Amino acid sequence: MATRDRTIEALIERLNRLPGIGPKTAERLAFHLLRVDAEEALLLARAIEQVRAAVKTCSRCFNLDASDPCSICSDATRDRSMLLVIEDPREVARFEDTGYRGLYHVLQGRLSQLEGIRPEDLTTNSLLTRVAQERPAEVCLATNPDLEGEGTARLLAERLAASTAAQGIRVTRLARGLPAGSSIAQVSTSILADAIEGRRPLAP
Amino acid sequence: MATRDRTIEALIERLNRLPGIGPKTAERLAFHLLRVDAEEALLLARAIEQVRAAVKTCSRCFNLDASDPCSICSDATRDRSMLLVIEDPREVARFEDTGYRGLYHVLQGRLSQLEGIRPEDLTTNSLLTRVAQERPAEVCLATNPDLEGEGTARLLAERLAASTAAQGIRVTRLARGLPAGSSIAQVSTSILADAIEGRRPLAP
Repeated sequence: MATRDRTIEALIERLNRLPGIGPKTAERLAFHLLRVDAEEALLLARAIEQVRAAVKTCSRCFNLDASDPCSICSDATRDRSMLLVIEDPREVARFEDTGYRGLYHVLQGRLSQLEGIRPEDLTTNSLLTRVAQERPAEVCLATNPDLEGEGTARLLAERLAASTAAQGIRVTRLARGLPAGSSIAQVSTSILADAIEGRRPLAP
Repeated sequence: MATRDRTIEALIERLNRLPGIGPKTAERLAFHLLRVDAEEALLLARAIEQVRAAVKTCSRCFNLDASDPCSICSDATRDRSMLLVIEDPREVARFEDTGYRGLYHVLQGRLSQLEGIRPEDLTTNSLLTRVAQERPAEVCLATNPDLEGEGTARLLAERLAASTAAQGIRVTRLARGLPAGSSIAQVSTSILADAIEGRRPLAP
């Protein structure tokens, strides 16, 4: 029985291993890569090879970058008094866009009972060591505003409070409230409850 | 200002060019490819390179395969009296799964006023030449059962009828009706209308 070429099957299988890419999407992408100019398809292959050849994990903050320490950690103009603790290296670009000029610490995930992710699976110990050594004025626990992000922040706050070397360091959390541009009529009850809870005095 | 490594940006941009992959998904996939074992990521790059090195378009039926003519066209056991005209090479595997043993002709698309796809953009002329030369007993126009697929089938039927070399060849269309396993209470009115229109005598 004539079947589909094995290199096509192999590519579909590889694409199907990517997160969120099911068998149908993998097939669609594979045939797209067969239909476009060979150069176009090979540029994707080369981009994957180049990213893996060039990008390392920063041994200090666990950000992904071409150099170790990363370009942020080794930038003398960054504000070393502020350490922003984030879940994922992707989030660095989001915070950079805001004009944030402090340092980062990438946890490489968040605690999750469901997925069996424990504090030891994150860069928790590196964070504690680093905070004790570098003694920033403030550590902002910028994990996501959801159940697991909150749980992760709470555990990190406990660990920091228990560390004698981290005494006197201010531990904060990102503000929760109304998203800019939202409509009070449309936001969820929990967003509104956060906004009331976190209300701030208005300077006249 | 420290920014994201340019090889990461390059990979995100490449992934974003794939159909149905928006900037957020491209970012997620890029960081996935950075997080997994290097070997895992490089196997995808290699699968793309191998598929482009190995796979050709069959000069006879326009199917994608490692050989030209493709393994189906060059298989002497296939039924040469039947030619199934399809839109996309992906569909070959679907028909093969049904046990179909005739030949194929891949149009490489369908007519679309919206996308400006004209008969000349498809393999229409190759189909007419091929039908005149090979003279199968039947040409089944297996384009999709939607507006553009119907329009494409209608045009091909006209062209085949106008070709003196294609006289006497039976031109058919795939049956339309209730999908196997469906429920009459659930299917759309147009499916039901097709099913009534195409009703068949029941042998006692």
